Amino acid sequence: MILAGGSGARFWPLSREMSPKQMLSIFGGASLITQAIERIRPLAGGGLHVLTNERLRDEIGNHLSAQPSLEGVHVEVLAEPTPRNTAPAMALAAAYLCAADPEAIMIVLPSDHLLECGPAWDATVQLAVEAAGGGALVTIGLKPRAPETGYGYIRAGRPLAGLSLDGLAVHAVHEFVEKPDAATAEAYVASGDYLWNSGMLVARAATVLSQFRSVGRRDATEDSRHGELIANTAEEIAALDPTLWPIGASHEAFAALPAVPFDKAVLEVSERVVVVPTDLAWSDVGSLLALETLAEPDERGNVLVGRVHDIDSTGVIAYSADRLVATLGLSDLMVVDTADATLIASKSRAQDVRLIVEALKATDTPELSTSRVSLRPWGSWTLLLKSSGFQIKSIDVSPGKRLSLQSHTRRSEHWVVVQGTARVSRDDETIDLCANESVYLPAGSVHRLENTGTDCLRVIEVAVGEYLEEDDIVRHEDDWDR
Amino acid sequence: MILAGGSGARFWPLSREMSPKQMLSIFGGASLITQAIERIRPLAGGGLHVLTNERLRDEIGNHLSAQPSLEGVHVEVLAEPTPRNTAPAMALAAAYLCAADPEAIMIVLPSDHLLECGPAWDATVQLAVEAAGGGALVTIGLKPRAPETGYGYIRAGRPLAGLSLDGLAVHAVHEFVEKPDAATAEAYVASGDYLWNSGMLVARAATVLSQFRSVGRRDATEDSRHGELIANTAEEIAALDPTLWPIGASHEAFAALPAVPFDKAVLEVSERVVVVPTDLAWSDVGSLLALETLAEPDERGNVLVGRVHDIDSTGVIAYSADRLVATLGLSDLMVVDTADATLIASKSRAQDVRLIVEALKATDTPELSTSRVSLRPWGSWTLLLKSSGFQIKSIDVSPGKRLSLQSHTRRSEHWVVVQGTARVSRDDETIDLCANESVYLPAGSVHRLENTGTDCLRVIEVAVGEYLEEDDIVRHEDDWDR
Repeated sequence: MILAGGSGARFWPLSREMSPKQMLSIFGGASLITQAIERIRPLAGGGLHVLTNERLRDEIGNHLSAQPSLEGVHVEVLAEPTPRNTAPAMALAAAYLCAADPEAIMIVLPSDHLLECGPAWDATVQLAVEAAGGGALVTIGLKPRAPETGYGYIRAGRPLAGLSLDGLAVHAVHEFVEKPDAATAEAYVASGDYLWNSGMLVARAATVLSQFRSVGRRDATEDSRHGELIANTAEEIAALDPTLWPIGASHEAFAALPAVPFDKAVLEVSERVVVVPTDLAWSDVGSLLALETLAEPDERGNVLVGRVHDIDSTGVIAYSADRLVATLGLSDLMVVDTADATLIASKSRAQDVRLIVEALKATDTPELSTSRVSLRPWGSWTLLLKSSGFQIKSIDVSPGKRLSLQSHTRRSEHWVVVQGTARVSRDDETIDLCANESVYLPAGSVHRLENTGTDCLRVIEVAVGEYLEEDDIVRHEDDWDR
Repeated sequence: MILAGGSGARFWPLSREMSPKQMLSIFGGASLITQAIERIRPLAGGGLHVLTNERLRDEIGNHLSAQPSLEGVHVEVLAEPTPRNTAPAMALAAAYLCAADPEAIMIVLPSDHLLECGPAWDATVQLAVEAAGGGALVTIGLKPRAPETGYGYIRAGRPLAGLSLDGLAVHAVHEFVEKPDAATAEAYVASGDYLWNSGMLVARAATVLSQFRSVGRRDATEDSRHGELIANTAEEIAALDPTLWPIGASHEAFAALPAVPFDKAVLEVSERVVVVPTDLAWSDVGSLLALETLAEPDERGNVLVGRVHDIDSTGVIAYSADRLVATLGLSDLMVVDTADATLIASKSRAQDVRLIVEALKATDTPELSTSRVSLRPWGSWTLLLKSSGFQIKSIDVSPGKRLSLQSHTRRSEHWVVVQGTARVSRDDETIDLCANESVYLPAGSVHRLENTGTDCLRVIEVAVGEYLEEDDIVRHEDDWDR
């Protein structure tokens, strides 16, 4: 169960509301969510699930369908009825899995972290699953490699008898602690008892639900006392088809749940919690400062990625996806450049990038929500220009793939093939096109674009009409059942 | 005579090699060169001339043709055979005007400064012209409004008897001094004797030539001793049609001249130099710091122009032409954003932007030479995407205007009208198009685009071919004789 509801506001302008941090591919190759799935796929005996929100469900589905490494892999993308922090989400995930298999063991992973894979990871999961089978809520604690003040910590207790693997053991948990100050973090690391709280959890789904109920009854804190309500509501909703979750009564019931974090609602008050300490490279990729890991710093401590030309800067992170960025005489800044927006911030303010996002949200700035590039199961499109009355996209279709059979009520489209070979259906016609050929699709025509070649097909689309939004699309037939 | 050969390297990325500082319109309305022409047009009895270099001649001609305020105004655009600093250029300008009219008085203005117009300016020019008629080389000195270290100064002497107008007088010149340090600049301003050297000159063309010769003979410094050669060569070249200047023997002869500044070669050694002190607001717009004049600073001393969202910065200049720029917690920086390139620099390094330009030149970076927008006599085009095998432009045609009748040998074009009404000729056909209609122009076809409406015509052009440069154009007929 990959949790993918995060908005990643601190990663703007790389992340957008419709393309949040977990969908970014900047940290080497695959997107973070793809890495998360790849990390657990060989170890997960049951199905692969992603839990996100209604707004992101289609985007994430399209995103995963477009990943070559996940070709043929079935991942079920679920949307919680409405965002209510992690406790209701975790209960819903557990109820859904439990309904399908009462013995199911959940492996819950964040979708937007970086983690070292390999034998130690495999052993960690294997041991955690074993402990979970015995009825524990198993957290995974990472041996701290630095006195990080940006992470929560788990204070581990004695190892529990009987369970161990490859030098790993299951330990009791003394306490969960919030992000410490610098001196406290130093002391934590020096003590050897404290571990980074990775946010990963392994448990029987039934145990998760029963713990919601028992902590709610037994020892009600403000955050835990609604455990029974949360568990009951989750089970009711989970009994429905997931496409119905965000609608009607289930939406209302979920929206009425307290928006509390799972850590507070269950983990910090349950007696079933244990931890598997493990020594893996890990990052929660919590701010744009993580870009610093993308390349070796130069001799002045700058990390410059992409088309960046620098003179005399020190301690600068500069990341450019495509455009030219020149920096001159800067110190300790972050520069993040994308096709349509640029952020320049003091590195000391990395956590405050969310303030920019909030300010842009207040003014309904389009660069906040959508990225210029959108992945689709059949390829991708890139918005080149949006103007009054028309817009221009570059559409890339993978070999052998085709878009849905579709029509638009309020826009016409002019397609010019600039690379590859296309088959276009337009109402009753079939038209084969190669580079430097074009076709006109008037509003209302039922049309489809297919790549019949072995290379990428690229089409420039000039859409003309008074209304040009994505939702003016009627899908008559689709290879991906959208 | 407007001097417009400058490259404006310190204004990158606003300026480009093919669109230098004098063609920028950022300082309120018209471009700097248009402002220069408008400033002198009511005062210049003879013709209006621009002297630039061969590389920029067509761009500047197109640029001026596209200025609404210059509609119907004839400006002759001359190109020096090759750039050799200002002394050879000034001699050639003088020789050209002198050949047409031996009594001609030149008013020489830089094309890339800002200057306050009004009655004081008119009187200054009128008095300078009067003094020039008497055989003087008349400089214009501006009363310093601050102890600027970025300007040269003129130390004025006693007023000369007989010539005055509206409180203005003609003064002797004691000396020209280079850019001073801060303390010296303070002393200059306090003394009341020193004036900013504006680079403007008024003189009989014949006097300029004769002074080249006489200072060369009389009192030869390293920079002035070639005066006779410069004057003779300039007269030989000026006798030719200007379109021949950059070619063959005239190019070679001009290239062989010493590349010295006119100030050193003539003004600092001539006994004919006088100055008209005047009190006008003026700026040489010497670096991107001039952007600070574009708006009132906010309460933290930031000047933010365009789509800039700031949180907690101080003393920042941020200019965005169109894209979204967010700044967070910055101090004393300049951010200059354009469609295809962004500069971020310490304000203290404003003069060193040319170092960036030099570095980019060494790597042949396309963002150095061309801007995305190019003005044309009939309107403008904007490059939206250039890729391998195709490129996309947005073409705006003014009402009633038409492009040249042209053909291309190596590219085909697909035109989609997205706004307005067009008449397209294609070989023997005439095709009328309105919004949402398109036409295909295969390589080799002789075609023309005309705006037959009363509003702007906008056409999206998808050009397809292996070679897409501007020079693949054969003009069969042109309203501007290009």
